[in-house]
Amino acid sequence: MSHHPENDSKYIGLKVNPGIEKPDAVNSDSVNRFLKKGKRQNLSSEQYIEGILNGNITILSQAVTLIESNNPLHQQIAQEVIIKCLPHSGNSVRIGITGMPGAGKSTFIEVLGKRITKQGGKLAVLAVDPSSERSKGSILGDKTRMDELSTDPNAYIRPSPSAGTLGGVARKTREIIILCEAAGFTTIFIETVGVGQSETVVHSMVDFFLLLQIAGAGDELQGIKRGIMEMADTIIINKADGDNYDKAQLAAAQFRNALHLFPPTGSGWIPPVLTCSALEDSGIAEIWEMVKSYVALTQKNTYFNSRRSDQARFWMYETIHETLRTNFYQNPLVKTTLPDYEKLVPENTISSYIAAQELLATYFKSMLKE
Amino acid sequence: MSHHPENDSKYIGLKVNPGIEKPDAVNSDSVNRFLKKGKRQNLSSEQYIEGILNGNITILSQAVTLIESNNPLHQQIAQEVIIKCLPHSGNSVRIGITGMPGAGKSTFIEVLGKRITKQGGKLAVLAVDPSSERSKGSILGDKTRMDELSTDPNAYIRPSPSAGTLGGVARKTREIIILCEAAGFTTIFIETVGVGQSETVVHSMVDFFLLLQIAGAGDELQGIKRGIMEMADTIIINKADGDNYDKAQLAAAQFRNALHLFPPTGSGWIPPVLTCSALEDSGIAEIWEMVKSYVALTQKNTYFNSRRSDQARFWMYETIHETLRTNFYQNPLVKTTLPDYEKLVPENTISSYIAAQELLATYFKSMLKE
Repeated sequence: MSHHPENDSKYIGLKVNPGIEKPDAVNSDSVNRFLKKGKRQNLSSEQYIEGILNGNITILSQAVTLIESNNPLHQQIAQEVIIKCLPHSGNSVRIGITGMPGAGKSTFIEVLGKRITKQGGKLAVLAVDPSSERSKGSILGDKTRMDELSTDPNAYIRPSPSAGTLGGVARKTREIIILCEAAGFTTIFIETVGVGQSETVVHSMVDFFLLLQIAGAGDELQGIKRGIMEMADTIIINKADGDNYDKAQLAAAQFRNALHLFPPTGSGWIPPVLTCSALEDSGIAEIWEMVKSYVALTQKNTYFNSRRSDQARFWMYETIHETLRTNFYQNPLVKTTLPDYEKLVPENTISSYIAAQELLATYFKSMLKE
Repeated sequence: MSHHPENDSKYIGLKVNPGIEKPDAVNSDSVNRFLKKGKRQNLSSEQYIEGILNGNITILSQAVTLIESNNPLHQQIAQEVIIKCLPHSGNSVRIGITGMPGAGKSTFIEVLGKRITKQGGKLAVLAVDPSSERSKGSILGDKTRMDELSTDPNAYIRPSPSAGTLGGVARKTREIIILCEAAGFTTIFIETVGVGQSETVVHSMVDFFLLLQIAGAGDELQGIKRGIMEMADTIIINKADGDNYDKAQLAAAQFRNALHLFPPTGSGWIPPVLTCSALEDSGIAEIWEMVKSYVALTQKNTYFNSRRSDQARFWMYETIHETLRTNFYQNPLVKTTLPDYEKLVPENTISSYIAAQELLATYFKSMLKE
């Protein structure tokens, strides 16, 4: 395979590992032609499905590219692939990992990820990182940071879909999770930077939400919104090493105090605060055991599945609401008249409510005419 | 006037002050008949408008009741009144006041409110307190707590509209603000309890957002979401009196440190942290001066008006989105098929996205048939 996707600007941060490609039913010539010419519609949806179910990472990766594409033909194939992969999805633990730039997320993911693959797990690392938040510090944008994991044949690293809105990125990421699970990945990390809206979105698609922090200079909450702490199933204080060890323990104690202020979670799980050093690989084993005990607890008390059901419904509703809005704002008559209302409403010529009613009347009337 | 609205269960917390009724063009017999029989449609929209513009609080109060009513006829008259009052609205300072139960909001509002009316201002005190959040501690539900203000002829106290959703309550509150301003009120307080979603909604309809806190036992942030601190234009530590004085000063220092962590506001205003004792009426004058200096600053740098314009547009969009959603979920075909999708989606029989697409197709097709 002479073409390396990571040389393509569309694949920043992605390394495809040729070593993991299993022999499969897909004609290898067609795969090669596909990769060389970059024509993504060369495989049929059946070929994608078969490749994914066989754990072929090259084909998985191309299917992910279809999901990310906004081309209607790509989207059509992608949806066919997704619906066929759905019955094979769900058999993973989905873990959201968030933390400020500087918390050491990439090293943490690398070290925890290596531990998972060494134990026989297959790990996919995804990111939710819409373009509007990218400047704030995407880790997967920087492919050099996860060298070991990116050459691990049991790991698949894929940066955030770059397309537009947070809602769009979220939908595509959820669809990528389905494909990864159908391809046999047992653990999915979904990384995000805890500074915008994306952590809420990630929380809505994972089983377990991990907040990575470091001991700060005085105020441990710096830069992290309180809402994120409320979502966390655990808080990990990283960089508990060397001169920083005592400070990290102190920070952990402070976070434990802070977490006591929150109401109990619906899962019956009491979020623990642990320390680790990703650099020295200390405390990582304990973290993984803790995640496993969370999964065991919530699978036993049925919270695990009911949370997933709630999330699936939530995303159905989110998609409906986003589409209703898009359809409204793309209506030609709304497009024509909206700028007037945007001007009249702040001038108190018309109330916000009446303006909305008139625009809605325009919209609904024009729908009936179509 | 033999009928006292506060004896009516619909008027909990409201006191109409007969003393403030100015002679006006509205026939007093019709007003009396209106009050006695409780028939709200007895006045024409012209009579409401004239009464409101004359500062007649009884008529204002009846118009507010029309806004709160979900009867279509009442709503129609209300909208006629609102649109005629709009050109006379806007000449007030709208102040959001939030704080946990126990922070002393009602005493604070009473003492600050009395100061405002003594200086010749006219004060309306409204609340955003949807029924779902009511149990968490509405202050205006307890009319005994603002005795002085409720008998002040230059104050108008009105509890939260009790109708349903937060969006509905918000819209009605914004409309009530318009009427109050048209009736000559120069300061509007909008009170809410800082525990739910309503503080965000209140923030979206005020010029200035005041967070009332008290010194706590160890953790000052207890129970208040960090997001609320980010919205605050000032934090006031109340109950800085007696044995509590030093603790209040310490809490203020801690909040000052915490506020330093937030990015600068768009207004150019640096949110100050002040202490006061509403009980002893100390520090209240300084708070009112501070609000006035905020208004002066933001009127000079045009932030004041641009924030209002943004808010007016925001509420137009909110109304549009809520109506689009309501229309979708009330569609008979959607109602019939939605329960199936709610079942199939968590079972992985169909993806959230495809389920949404199918429901949307059903909806849009049935729209065209209508």
